[in-house]
Order: sequence, then C-alpha cells, then structure tokens
Amino acid sequence: MKCFVDYPASCHFPIENLPYGVFSTVQDPIHRIGVAIGDLVLDLKEISHLFDGPHLKTVQHVFKETTLNSFMGLNCAAWKEARDKLQSLLSADNPTLANNAALRTKAFVPQSQATMHLPARIGDYTDFYSSIHHAMNVGIMFRSKENALMPNWKYLPVGYHGRASSVVVSGTPIKRPNGQTLPVEGQAPVYGSCKLMDFELEMAFFVGGPPTQLGEPVDIKKAQERIFGFVVMNDWSARDIQKWEYVPLGPFTAKNLGTTISPWVVTTFALEPFKVNNFQQEPKPFEYLVHDDPFNFDIKLQVDIAPKNANTSTTVCRSNYRYLYWTAKQQLAHHTVTGCNVNPGDLLASGTISGDTSDSFGSMLELSWKGSKTVDLMNGEQRKFLQDGDTVVMKGFCEGNGFTVGFGDCVGTILPANKM
Amino acid sequence: MKCFVDYPASCHFPIENLPYGVFSTVQDPIHRIGVAIGDLVLDLKEISHLFDGPHLKTVQHVFKETTLNSFMGLNCAAWKEARDKLQSLLSADNPTLANNAALRTKAFVPQSQATMHLPARIGDYTDFYSSIHHAMNVGIMFRSKENALMPNWKYLPVGYHGRASSVVVSGTPIKRPNGQTLPVEGQAPVYGSCKLMDFELEMAFFVGGPPTQLGEPVDIKKAQERIFGFVVMNDWSARDIQKWEYVPLGPFTAKNLGTTISPWVVTTFALEPFKVNNFQQEPKPFEYLVHDDPFNFDIKLQVDIAPKNANTSTTVCRSNYRYLYWTAKQQLAHHTVTGCNVNPGDLLASGTISGDTSDSFGSMLELSWKGSKTVDLMNGEQRKFLQDGDTVVMKGFCEGNGFTVGFGDCVGTILPANKM
Repeated sequence: MKCFVDYPASCHFPIENLPYGVFSTVQDPIHRIGVAIGDLVLDLKEISHLFDGPHLKTVQHVFKETTLNSFMGLNCAAWKEARDKLQSLLSADNPTLANNAALRTKAFVPQSQATMHLPARIGDYTDFYSSIHHAMNVGIMFRSKENALMPNWKYLPVGYHGRASSVVVSGTPIKRPNGQTLPVEGQAPVYGSCKLMDFELEMAFFVGGPPTQLGEPVDIKKAQERIFGFVVMNDWSARDIQKWEYVPLGPFTAKNLGTTISPWVVTTFALEPFKVNNFQQEPKPFEYLVHDDPFNFDIKLQVDIAPKNANTSTTVCRSNYRYLYWTAKQQLAHHTVTGCNVNPGDLLASGTISGDTSDSFGSMLELSWKGSKTVDLMNGEQRKFLQDGDTVVMKGFCEGNGFTVGFGDCVGTILPANKM
Repeated sequence: MKCFVDYPASCHFPIENLPYGVFSTVQDPIHRIGVAIGDLVLDLKEISHLFDGPHLKTVQHVFKETTLNSFMGLNCAAWKEARDKLQSLLSADNPTLANNAALRTKAFVPQSQATMHLPARIGDYTDFYSSIHHAMNVGIMFRSKENALMPNWKYLPVGYHGRASSVVVSGTPIKRPNGQTLPVEGQAPVYGSCKLMDFELEMAFFVGGPPTQLGEPVDIKKAQERIFGFVVMNDWSARDIQKWEYVPLGPFTAKNLGTTISPWVVTTFALEPFKVNNFQQEPKPFEYLVHDDPFNFDIKLQVDIAPKNANTSTTVCRSNYRYLYWTAKQQLAHHTVTGCNVNPGDLLASGTISGDTSDSFGSMLELSWKGSKTVDLMNGEQRKFLQDGDTVVMKGFCEGNGFTVGFGDCVGTILPANKM
C-alpha cells in the first residue's frame, strides 16, 4: 500500500496502522479527532464529509466530536468502513485528498505541533492480572513457588475495578504520593512519601459498540465486535502503600495516583497481521470463556528509564503482549458474566505483562526482585524502584513485512511528593 | 417553617428537607432536575430564572440540565443559596410562586407521575468498609474473634473502586447473576447461577465542587465543602461468586451486577440538625484523617423484604448511619491522600452499615450468620439469602422536631438468572 504522505520504513504510523487519537493545537485549542500518518496528524473534522459509505454517511458528526466515544459507539462495520476510507484517501493513487492542496493544508497537522489528549471519556476502567509470568513472580515473592498462583487464577481472568478519573495521557507528570505504609510488620504504620514507586507495563483496550444493558453479558462469540483498539499503559503503583492497604478489598490509593496511556489507539484491524496463537490454557476454561480463534498479538513492548539530568536512557525491560494467558475477549466475557454493562470508551487493561526471562519483567518489583537486587542504568546509577525525576518511557510496536505499527510513546516523569 | 404545599407531619419531604433528584414524565420525557416537596416535585427548569442571588444568577443554566453534575460542580455557597431560595419560594408567606397559578401549574408535578432517574452521571464509584460492627461480623465469620479486624482497619478507611456503570436508580430490577463459585473447598469450581444473593445496606454521598487536580489531595479541613449530599444504597452482592473471585484483588463481578441508590439526594444542610458525635477512634488516626467536629448523623435505616406474591413485607434490619466508624470526610481525605482526583458526581459509599445487635445487621450474610440460621418472614417463609422475586426495600429517615427527613425508598426486585 503506497501512501502519498512520505515516511521511512521504520515509521510507527504507516498507512497500515492509522491509529486514532484526540489532539489540539495552539492555533485551535478545541479537542478533535485525528489519525496518525507518518509524522502528521490527519484532522478528521476537516474530512468528515468524505466518509460517505453506508455505515458512516449519516453519522459523520462522530468525526467532529471532542472524543472518540461516539465513533467507538458505532459498530465494527462502521469502524472497518472508516479504515477502508482512510486507507483509500491516503493512498498515492487517490487524488481526492492528495491533489486538493487547500484541503491538505487544513487537514494535516505536524505531530510536533499537536498536543495529545485522552482519546475518550473513560466511563469505567478495569485492570486485569492476566500475565502468568507476572502472577507467578509476585506469588513466588510473597508466598512460595508451590503456592504462587491463587486457586482461582487459571479458572478466571482475575481483575478489579480501577479509578477512571486518574487515567491520563502520555506526558502527564506523576507525583510521588504520600500515604500510609507499614515499614515493620507487627508495628504501627507510618505516614509519609512512598518509598517503593513503581511502573507496571500493561496494555489496555477500549470497549466499542453501543452500550450494553445491565444483566446482559457479552457473549464470547461477540466479544471481538466490542474491542475497538489498544493502547500501551503504565499503571503506576506505590508498592509500599499497596502492601499495607490491599487486604481484603484490593489495591486502592496505591493505584489511583495516576495511570498513563499512550496517545494513539491502534485498532484491532491494524493488529490483525500480528495475531499469534493464544496461550495454552490448562485446565480448559468454562464454556463462557472459550474461543478457539487466535486473539493474541505479537506486540513488542519495551520500558526505558531516563533519570533526571542524564542524557541517556536505559531499556530495563523487553516484553511482549503475547505472554498474556487470558485474551482480551476472555477478559470482556468474564467482566460481564454476572451482567455488568459496558459502554463505549470503557478501558480494560491487561495487568503487568512479564515474560519468562528476568529481562522481560514488567515492573521494578520484579526486576529488582522485591528490592533484593539493583538494576543498572547507562549513566552509572542504579535503581531498585523509581526516583524523583525519573522518566519512564514505554513503547509498543509490531514488526510487519516492510512496515511497523506503533502506539506512540507512553511517557511519565515522577515529580517529588507534596510537602507534608 | 410553614410551606404553602400541604403535607402531613410524617411526610419525608418537608420544607426542611428539599432533596434533589432527576425525573421525567410521560408528557415530557426529557430528564430534568427536581426537588421533592410533600408529594410533589418542583421542576427547577421552570423556576431557574428565580435563582437570582450572587452565586447563582449567572449560572442558572445548571437548573436546566439533565443531571445534577453542573449544580454539584458549583460550591457550597451556591448550594446554600439555592436551598435558601427554595425555602423562601416555598414558604407560605412568599407570594412569588404561591400566588402565581400559571407558574405553579408548570412547575409542580405529582411524584406519582414522575419517573425518577440517576441524579448524576457517576464518573467514579467507590465503596468503603467503614462500619466496625459489619467488619467485625465478617471477620468473626471468616476468621476468628481475635483476628476479626485486619491490621489496617483502624488506621485507614478501607475501600475499593467499584463499577460506576452498574449503579442504577431505585426501582430497577436486578437479575440474579451467573458466574463461577467454589462449592467445595479444594475441588474444582462450577459455573452456574448465584446461590447466595444478598443485599448490603449502605449510604453513599455525592462529591461536589469543581474537579480537583491529579496529585492534589482533598484536605480534611476542606472535605465538607465537597460533600454535596447523601443517598441510601443497596450494594447487591453475589456472596458465593465473591468468595471465589476476590483474592487477591478484591470483589469484582460479584458486585458489578447492579448497585441501587435512592432517587433523592439529601443535602448535607438538611442533615445538619441530625449531627451526632463521631465514633470514638482508637488509635487516633494520622493527622490527614483528623477532624474534631462531628460529621456523623442519626439517620435511621431499615431493610424490608417483600416476597413475590406475598402481600406482606418484613422488616429484617433496623440500623443507623451513626454506627459508622469512619466519617464521610475521612473517607474523602483518605481516598485522595495519594493524589486521586475527584469530580462532581463521583459517588462514595459507606460499606454495609451494621449495628451491634443481631436485628441491626445490614446484610443477609450477617442476619443468617453465613447461612447457619434462618430469617423469618411475615408470610411464613424463611430466608437465608434472597430468592427470585424478592423485593428489597431500604429506607432512610431522620426524625426532627415535628418533621421527618427522608431519601425516598431504595427498591429492587430479584429477577431469575439468564438461562445458561
């Protein structure tokens, strides 16, 4: 597929990708929907009239809104039609946009001039715990190798409701939190700033399709129709606060201090060429969780740490989305099995994605093995957990035949805690 | 205070109450904001022009919206001005509304003709676990009297993020869920319909004031300014599903099948006369959780069960909001201590409110003591947990000097599970 916008083969936003995001510019601060192509953003508001296919021609207003929710709220056929139309409009042999200088001037914005925003109003955010290597690591650390996985882990995708308001877009600084911790088991807790600040390498998907009704589960056979697209996510975690607070109702304030997502939502269509076999599941899940088609993806993931004032950054983790035990379809089917309703713009995250080698662990908790060893950085510093000023950069990308599909960096810098 | 609308002394909606809700009628299906007075609803859209005080005259549009979010998003002074204006407009000696027959006809709707809706778009919903008697009961049942409370319980208000999308208004039927349970410890789980369906008697408050910023905790000294008002809540729970799924990340699908709230939001102003001393806290909480002024309320709570086809209902629980160990102000301060941002319309619930006598326990789990005894109903039936067709009615009311302040019933009926 040849695009009239020029970009190198290494570009993460070729015509095969076409991820959606929401952006604004200094000249026009109103949030609007864009598609990344090369180093440009295509402003869909300016070309909404060109979506003239049967699914979109009467709902072109979805491309003029300030979030993706209405577009996500359409259906798979509409999303496909939009993608086909965009590929056609951007292709080198279609003059509609390529040869319309006035429209091109209005519709393309350099990514360097675009400020990215949350792509959707996130009604509800859920975090799963679907990487078996991560669950094993945490289980071994805090229990034992024999009892590493909880009895329910292989029967259902363990997950919990997260905080939607504190999900932020890449680039938003994250403040080290104050809170309660228990430095010495059996003694009284203390109040102070978090000592064990961590990242969690995750991916998440946005739910699409019209709202479902309370009491009506999403059938696993129809789950894919409700998976709009994916982002890379950093689920920042205050480990010491988490440890003290989480029994018996789960993580709470240790997680609601900020959750960062990448700016671009890569559609399931764009990930199609990167499908790989699902993780082998034993025991076989209950019928409501069974699907035989592959819905796992070869998405390379990477975490870099750049300390303050260092001009180097260090890749501390190389992982892959394919390591997930539970698929996104299984997550959605399980989430709704008791009748939970879902809305377009809901966000479901994978949980930390760790591989089976020590350089593929998706958190400092695992990389430093609970602080028992250090992680070397290129500038000579070492880390067990994150320090103030550290910038964490997560990347996700799929390597295709002559092209690369990426999500845009998922970045956040740790700011010092509020004074007490 | 004499109101020109007539109502008996037993009415839950006197001029001293003035709770807010959102309603529609058959004639006008557009959602709008109303205030309950006697057996009427005052339609604020019709009298928005009368809010002419300094805080409201430039923002009268908040009374014409379809939810309370914008009004909640103002501040305490604006809410007070609205209340004062409403009391003035409804008082017997103010002719503005009383003597304007045309406006009265437009502005008053009988409650019997009003369909109530969720009062706000709930951005995020959080559930605490703040009743010490409830936490003790559960602890004794599942652990032992000696270890009933977890070590963190008296240091922080334990809570967890809930599912906002499944919060529904009183009257919405609740379907018995299907899901995974573990009938026999150590054996394989089974998939089927919930056998241990329960209610949880709770109250919840809506957050008000402008959105806060991520990284900026709500100071306990300013917490009251952000507590708009309260509702009665039934946090339906699938106990057998909960038990199997909740370790280690907390309740998930056992709780997202539906959470019912009463239709009317009673403001903190209306509850002022019912303030009582806070629960004595030992050990003394950390400074960020300390407030010395009373922020506890004498709100009588009651749970009735009406079986299908029975013409009787049975009061199975009489409890009181005053039994809470942690106050709403402490809940909000703790929720945000790590920097979580809050928005107007966020909902923070108390957790099950149990008293210290067995007739004041706020769930069937406690009333039947984990199913070890039965609860007698007036029609001769017995219950350990809820059956299909059972209607659960929760009421909250404060008895003042010659008047009563109520929340409207919080009602839900259990429908049979989906066929598998």
